[in-house]
Amino acid sequence: MNQTPQWFEARFSPEMLVRIKVDRLVYAVQSAYQTIEVYDTSVFGRILVLDGVINVAEKDEFIYHEMLAHVPLITHPHPRSVLVVGGGDGGTVREVLKHPTIDRIELVEIDSAVVEVSRAFLPFVSCELDNPKVHITYEDAAYFVQKTSQRFDAILIDSTDPVGAGAVLFSESFYHDCRALLREGGVLAAQSESPFFDPHIVKPLYEMARTVFPIVRMYTAFVPSYVSGLWSFIFCSTSIDSVTQVTEDRIAALPDLRYYSPEIHQACFAIPPFVRIQYGV
Amino acid sequence: MNQTPQWFEARFSPEMLVRIKVDRLVYAVQSAYQTIEVYDTSVFGRILVLDGVINVAEKDEFIYHEMLAHVPLITHPHPRSVLVVGGGDGGTVREVLKHPTIDRIELVEIDSAVVEVSRAFLPFVSCELDNPKVHITYEDAAYFVQKTSQRFDAILIDSTDPVGAGAVLFSESFYHDCRALLREGGVLAAQSESPFFDPHIVKPLYEMARTVFPIVRMYTAFVPSYVSGLWSFIFCSTSIDSVTQVTEDRIAALPDLRYYSPEIHQACFAIPPFVRIQYGV
Repeated sequence: MNQTPQWFEARFSPEMLVRIKVDRLVYAVQSAYQTIEVYDTSVFGRILVLDGVINVAEKDEFIYHEMLAHVPLITHPHPRSVLVVGGGDGGTVREVLKHPTIDRIELVEIDSAVVEVSRAFLPFVSCELDNPKVHITYEDAAYFVQKTSQRFDAILIDSTDPVGAGAVLFSESFYHDCRALLREGGVLAAQSESPFFDPHIVKPLYEMARTVFPIVRMYTAFVPSYVSGLWSFIFCSTSIDSVTQVTEDRIAALPDLRYYSPEIHQACFAIPPFVRIQYGV
Repeated sequence: MNQTPQWFEARFSPEMLVRIKVDRLVYAVQSAYQTIEVYDTSVFGRILVLDGVINVAEKDEFIYHEMLAHVPLITHPHPRSVLVVGGGDGGTVREVLKHPTIDRIELVEIDSAVVEVSRAFLPFVSCELDNPKVHITYEDAAYFVQKTSQRFDAILIDSTDPVGAGAVLFSESFYHDCRALLREGGVLAAQSESPFFDPHIVKPLYEMARTVFPIVRMYTAFVPSYVSGLWSFIFCSTSIDSVTQVTEDRIAALPDLRYYSPEIHQACFAIPPFVRIQYGV
């Protein structure tokens, strides 16, 4: 790609596209796994595009990353070790490190180019990747969870859509392997796509998760740069229910929150009836 | 317009467009006030487009109409008379009539063509416009509220964006006139645009409303067919706070709810910190 397109076109679904005016193409590269592009836009600030899908947008990434990290970590009474699957941009790691109990984060990202591009061009998310508590492994997470001897208090699956290399992260075998790595009282959270546009992904994911974990919940957030704005996350645990066990003073102690709050923790589990009925959540 | 375009292009902001695949142009007309188009789409079902902006989408209109109607009406202990401003498609009227206490709805729509098109092509929203409790006046609502001798328990402002004929519905004089029409304990709600994309509209609206009403709240809903998915509504009252006064058994008695519920009533007032701080809500 040698010239900046005037408009970036993102596919929300085969029958819905969004076109965003682009000020500048910052960088583009074809990695071993995907096409990686960085654009500057007025609408969303700087955006990271993987295989044509917006994965990180400067102006709203805080919503996704705060919600993926804080909802499960606040639920756990004392999280120390966290496995982040995917998330090579660093945004989830940045949020996890806000919890003072954390002493180790294992980041398992299949594509080192995502980390390199993020370090170079997306400092607002990659800013904590060099923190000494963070250990990065470049590997297929499905392989990592089979062989590691580490155990974790929380597993956060910060995946792309379930196509290509990311598809295995939505599989039953992967969830089984993750459960085996959780310490007692451990929690798992993952982005779980759009309940409005992606029922073919959301429905089997929740059905599968319920065969692996006794406690499975859906929570939601507004993510304007993702399709439909209504984005869902799956919360799984063997013993802790995220809705009822919240410590407000631990939330108040988290620095620089822009979306998450004690009120949002409760509200994000209020699922509209049409979603609740469709997915049994 | 003589042929069906393959893609309908809606402007979310000057720098963000959404393109939706169109199966069929159903109808198009230029009224005295606006261009009115009806399309069939796979993504959103049948859509009503006013001056190029999606106003009603078959697959998600229930979210907007349930939230505009039920949040204020459930807050009021015994709503009997309701003024609906705009809303010529009929979706808000359909929801208001679910409340058994209602004995009269005054619908004031400036553009009779919206009602005619909706009656002809959008039966899922216009289905209750012939209910004997509904009285339709084709008039500028800003004029109506100055001259009417009727009084109301609730005023629901179901407006387009504040451009053209709809701009006056966001003005201080209009809110003053509305307040004067409310019976004791009366409530007002209005769609109040996207907190993410429309700060130039949202901020002055809430500042203005606080000069007219002692109680002003923001609540939100996911509306996938509106820009950013995060849509806001303004709740105003002289005496009742919508957050604290909810009767769950009255909600349970409302038929055919797909988005609204007792949990959603509480959750919709949980405003993320970045919105709360920006708008003082």
